[in-house]
Amino acid sequence: MRRISVLKPVLVSNKERAGENRKFFDRMNSLVINIISSPGAGKTSFIERIVKNFKDKYRILVIEGDIKGQIDSDRLAKSKVDVIQINTLTECHLDAFMTAQALPKIKKKYDLILVENVGNLVCPAEFEIGEDFKLAILSTPEGDDKPLKYPLLFHLAKVIVINKSDLLPYVNFDFAKAKTGIKRENPKSIVYEVSAKTGSGFENFFKFLEKELGAKKKNKS
Amino acid sequence: MRRISVLKPVLVSNKERAGENRKFFDRMNSLVINIISSPGAGKTSFIERIVKNFKDKYRILVIEGDIKGQIDSDRLAKSKVDVIQINTLTECHLDAFMTAQALPKIKKKYDLILVENVGNLVCPAEFEIGEDFKLAILSTPEGDDKPLKYPLLFHLAKVIVINKSDLLPYVNFDFAKAKTGIKRENPKSIVYEVSAKTGSGFENFFKFLEKELGAKKKNKS
Repeated sequence: MRRISVLKPVLVSNKERAGENRKFFDRMNSLVINIISSPGAGKTSFIERIVKNFKDKYRILVIEGDIKGQIDSDRLAKSKVDVIQINTLTECHLDAFMTAQALPKIKKKYDLILVENVGNLVCPAEFEIGEDFKLAILSTPEGDDKPLKYPLLFHLAKVIVINKSDLLPYVNFDFAKAKTGIKRENPKSIVYEVSAKTGSGFENFFKFLEKELGAKKKNKS
Repeated sequence: MRRISVLKPVLVSNKERAGENRKFFDRMNSLVINIISSPGAGKTSFIERIVKNFKDKYRILVIEGDIKGQIDSDRLAKSKVDVIQINTLTECHLDAFMTAQALPKIKKKYDLILVENVGNLVCPAEFEIGEDFKLAILSTPEGDDKPLKYPLLFHLAKVIVINKSDLLPYVNFDFAKAKTGIKRENPKSIVYEVSAKTGSGFENFFKFLEKELGAKKKNKS
């Protein structure tokens, strides 16, 4: 309760800083995606799939947000993609100020910047970082009721990826029910069902991403 | 960064309020467990197993923390257990003040109070609510690296439950590696491996809980 009076000005000032970050990314002509999910929903595997598919055609950077350590950065290094690690330490999300600290480390132009936020379905949604859009990942073992229980992220995300479709035979997850919940929170959202483990279901998402990359380039040229 | 100067006094004042809550629970002779995990790790199913096993012998109350809605309360009502719902709205965790709001609704004595915190592996760990101990649930699809990536909860929890053992054949989860990570953060923690879905692995946990319930009664009589 008492934190709200403090949090509001913080969010306003975060929004301003996010605007500055966005200008920086726009000058570089970079499409920036803020990827948010629970811990272990498959953010890193999802990014690995994007890198594998697009790295020969587009210049890609991953900004890796973790409370502590660099387990995912080490993983992604194997994909031969550029990675900048941000450790948030006491904070449960990336905000625009932490993201700004990464900007001086960006030494060349990238077409695509994938930001892997801290694993948390709640707090990261509140903080813009200068992204073009948010992409939420929901994994099937988490359950089809999550869009109704954690509405803010599903309300704000342009794209919602349902991951771990390979586990569907072993978990109680009703895709139609999840999609109804998502559409209730966010009728305009685009929903994809994939397995980052097996690679299935990515064709349509890759088409979408290719189009977004093209649109971003066109806007700025 | 700028939030730290605010957060510290909030945490101090939360700790004081948690002490008051604890006195209230102690007067009732209630064992209070603060159950924390990612969204969809199986908190509600885990609670259902406890209720099923102990409800004829002990008086049980569930305090249900959710940002919005009462999906889990409705589920638990089917187990014929008393439930108090707290909606945290803008907050990503339960704190001692929100928990205090539930106290006037507690109209009889309970032996066991199970608090299902908001699904979030990060923030709830920071806020004492007056519990006897924290119990963390980690589910196998989340991955065995989570104790190192989200260390605070695993550092503070007395009991760590690895849930969804039924999915082990289908996910990359190394129980030994997870346990090594947990023990590095918290050598004294007690670790159980269960499937709340099938019910397997609960025998040892139930023995532990029975002992804790007995000790609590003994302390206060």
